[in-house]
Amino acid sequence: MDGTRVFLANSNQHINIGKETHSRNGFVYVKNPHLDLMEEDILYHLDLGTKTHNLPAMFGDIKFVCVGGSPNRMKAFAQFMQKELGHEGEDNDLKNICAGTDRYSMYKVGPVLSISHGMGIPSISIMLHELIKLLHHAKCCDVTIIRIGTSGGLGVEPGSVVITDVAVDSFFKPQFEQVILDRVVTRSTELDQDLASELLKCSGKDFPTLIGHTMCTYDFYEGQGRLDGALCCFSNEKKLEYLKRAYNAGVRNIEMESTVFAAMCRLCGLKAAVICVTLLNRLEGDQIKASHEVLAEYQRRPQQLIATLIKKRLGLINDKELLDNAIV
Amino acid sequence: MDGTRVFLANSNQHINIGKETHSRNGFVYVKNPHLDLMEEDILYHLDLGTKTHNLPAMFGDIKFVCVGGSPNRMKAFAQFMQKELGHEGEDNDLKNICAGTDRYSMYKVGPVLSISHGMGIPSISIMLHELIKLLHHAKCCDVTIIRIGTSGGLGVEPGSVVITDVAVDSFFKPQFEQVILDRVVTRSTELDQDLASELLKCSGKDFPTLIGHTMCTYDFYEGQGRLDGALCCFSNEKKLEYLKRAYNAGVRNIEMESTVFAAMCRLCGLKAAVICVTLLNRLEGDQIKASHEVLAEYQRRPQQLIATLIKKRLGLINDKELLDNAIV
Repeated sequence: MDGTRVFLANSNQHINIGKETHSRNGFVYVKNPHLDLMEEDILYHLDLGTKTHNLPAMFGDIKFVCVGGSPNRMKAFAQFMQKELGHEGEDNDLKNICAGTDRYSMYKVGPVLSISHGMGIPSISIMLHELIKLLHHAKCCDVTIIRIGTSGGLGVEPGSVVITDVAVDSFFKPQFEQVILDRVVTRSTELDQDLASELLKCSGKDFPTLIGHTMCTYDFYEGQGRLDGALCCFSNEKKLEYLKRAYNAGVRNIEMESTVFAAMCRLCGLKAAVICVTLLNRLEGDQIKASHEVLAEYQRRPQQLIATLIKKRLGLINDKELLDNAIV
Repeated sequence: MDGTRVFLANSNQHINIGKETHSRNGFVYVKNPHLDLMEEDILYHLDLGTKTHNLPAMFGDIKFVCVGGSPNRMKAFAQFMQKELGHEGEDNDLKNICAGTDRYSMYKVGPVLSISHGMGIPSISIMLHELIKLLHHAKCCDVTIIRIGTSGGLGVEPGSVVITDVAVDSFFKPQFEQVILDRVVTRSTELDQDLASELLKCSGKDFPTLIGHTMCTYDFYEGQGRLDGALCCFSNEKKLEYLKRAYNAGVRNIEMESTVFAAMCRLCGLKAAVICVTLLNRLEGDQIKASHEVLAEYQRRPQQLIATLIKKRLGLINDKELLDNAIV
């Protein structure tokens, strides 16, 4: 990856702690020497803790973690997985594990954990810190984590599903800048390429699926070049010039969480993927005008892809069935 | 304000569109020439729109907007305002105006609007763009907006309420950096000083209230110098050295939304304040260990202050009653 090499070469002025990226023995690990010294760890925003909950018993069997912005969508995904994995009789058991807080929602279906993360880098970052500690305390092993999101598309048909190869910032760089105390630390945002390829193989004929760069911004309006916010000081021409430059740099969709998600998962030995459906083509407009029904159907698309991957990994479908459904 | 002068003097390399800060005729205004050309404006994340809803009829009488991270807390605030304003009989009417989406929750009690904004700058920024457009479309006039939040305290007793005079970033600068297309625009984060003083006068004897700087970060763990995240590469000494520098710069609490809130409200002619209760003293620890009951009582404190301000403005209490309750 040329972009990553350039970024690493240019990052000498920053601290770089992104080199050690493989997990030891498949365990999720934390990179924090202070944690071992703590008698208790309260995962405040999840309303869980090491003294109040038996985390290995509750979560030790987790193999797949799926995260997404909207609590309702992540509940719907958990219900969908109940059906897909034949856990339907357990409907009454599908309770929100984080019911004691309204910051995030969490559901568990067998080896699958479904969690909401709200909108934006800071919101997903809080959840990821606590989730990674949770998986560590629970001694989880060989965990795959996938973000299922919504996004604005760039030069792709609305409803297309984009599997991210690398998350880039507003300047099209494959990096995430984390402020630590008052120093800026640059982290790599590359995702697991094998997982991205495996996910692409799970796609079917029902909707377009592609691999591309995903741009992650701090803002939905000015930061994504929208003309319809409360504040806007640029022209339609400047907007299109920027979005076209993004397209030429390989960006196929824009969202608000992928860089920090890629950076943190990479540092903690989690194999990670980002799959977002595009709700509109940003080269054609800014407002999301599709009906609730159309948008709801779009949002089920990444879920179908992930369900196929999980069932394949669990041996519930075989390669032949996968091929029968695939675009050849 | 020395800090602000230094910032303005240093900001020549950036675009600065933060100078025009007073509202014309008390109306909330948008700074976006494109909006007038739009036939319809869909406020996507609020599930409202100019063609589907009569916004002036629904919201035209709004004078006070209170925003806060947690949906449950903002519902509790609306219920509290029902009692305070004598709207108790209307309990059944307290419905979530944004029920069609799970991104934000919104409640209206007479002239008071209560809205949740999630966690972090990107999340509150989306809400503010759509809220400001909503107030503009509804032709609202003389609106006061207050963020009621939770925060980490710095050298103040847990449960103290901090009224922000100016929001500062991780480098203690009174500014917010907004990426627009791929340029960085620096905006002032000063809040309305008269409103801050008026709020301080509404405080009583029940809990400590003070005016101070509020530091706003992009992250709860590494960005706030916490030792208990999934990632941590600094020592307890480095952490305390940073937090003490923040204290010496005038910071009394740390949260994750105030800079963009101050910057956007200022640009759109909204008189704005930030009032946060502190859940712990960060010089003494990182984990929030107080019981649910204690934390719930803490979170009602900023609400009491705002209720007093609103009742005073509406003529429901007079200056004598205020003085009787005040610390003299």
